[in-house]
Amino acid sequence: MTRDQGLFISFEGIDGSGKSTQARLLADALRALGHKVLLTREPGGSTGAEEIRRLVLEGEADRWSPETEILLFTAARRDHLEKTIRPALARGEIVITDRFADSTRMYQGIRRGDGADLRAMVDDLHARMIGVEPDLTLLIDIDAATGHSRAVSRAGAEQRFEDMGPALQARMREGFLALAQAEPRFAVIDGARAPAQVAADVLATAQAAL
Amino acid sequence: MTRDQGLFISFEGIDGSGKSTQARLLADALRALGHKVLLTREPGGSTGAEEIRRLVLEGEADRWSPETEILLFTAARRDHLEKTIRPALARGEIVITDRFADSTRMYQGIRRGDGADLRAMVDDLHARMIGVEPDLTLLIDIDAATGHSRAVSRAGAEQRFEDMGPALQARMREGFLALAQAEPRFAVIDGARAPAQVAADVLATAQAAL
Repeated sequence: MTRDQGLFISFEGIDGSGKSTQARLLADALRALGHKVLLTREPGGSTGAEEIRRLVLEGEADRWSPETEILLFTAARRDHLEKTIRPALARGEIVITDRFADSTRMYQGIRRGDGADLRAMVDDLHARMIGVEPDLTLLIDIDAATGHSRAVSRAGAEQRFEDMGPALQARMREGFLALAQAEPRFAVIDGARAPAQVAADVLATAQAAL
Repeated sequence: MTRDQGLFISFEGIDGSGKSTQARLLADALRALGHKVLLTREPGGSTGAEEIRRLVLEGEADRWSPETEILLFTAARRDHLEKTIRPALARGEIVITDRFADSTRMYQGIRRGDGADLRAMVDDLHARMIGVEPDLTLLIDIDAATGHSRAVSRAGAEQRFEDMGPALQARMREGFLALAQAEPRFAVIDGARAPAQVAADVLATAQAAL
């Protein structure tokens, strides 16, 4: 069925939390129930945003300063919103995105630089240039050590994850949980269980929001 | 000679004003006088900013919304400032850039969209993410019809300039002149004369600022 007005759902969590799997499972489950669902992701999600994604993620890790990276991610998000998310919501579809602005708040606001100033910068740019939050944000929560070992085993020798050790993952997890406590749009889902169990929780939460 | 502290000079003007030629002539003249000069340009001017430039300028003209384009230009400018302009100024050099933030104020703030809101957006992003103005901005001023015909003859059949007819060029010229009146860092140079005459004026103005 097509709803009169779409629903905008984001998945967030540290690397290795299983959120991408859960986003896909939720899209499948909602489609099986007859809903029109658009599954997308960030960074990326539109032709232009995918090009910006490549620009940011390719090349050396520190080729962009945190500030430039925040601007590029905000540009990508603006394009994603204009070209993919808003049109789907206007058609009454359910939009599920694997990451949205909360990831920038954590990854650029906490991971890089000294925190507070960058976080304020991310929030300012978001308020000015994006101005939209999801109706529902599903935070797939796992402890940092589990997330880190899952991410490393998936990525193999990819240096990016090695550099982002468990201590940093722990700070990011705390950051996500603090956001979730502050914003009513969040639901925190225990991601340490089997994927099917997590998916059942996720689906029930999404259906309650429909 | 190397100065204790660099000088930051920008050239601005509508298409066909001759500002790129004048930027080069000024760099040559100052080098002949023994100064260390870095000549650069926007959009671009650093490795990362040139990549963003290609992303913005290639492809269809309206592939990016004005808002996304403003974010991308601001990201490019931040990289240009960090990687090229600031290091040269710190070495005591004179930095001459062919276009800087005033071009975004005019091209994105006036040419695209309905003006006022976009202009405020450009100014806000500049204040937050760039925060630097040139010590001296040389506005090479010509009437819109001359600029347009020069730009069209140079670009051949390039549609971009045809789309930006004399009426729009006239609005941009007015916008540049209004900025120049409001900001003491501007010097307005009559660009309708022979290049050598214009260059003499430009050099005298720059030397007064040294």
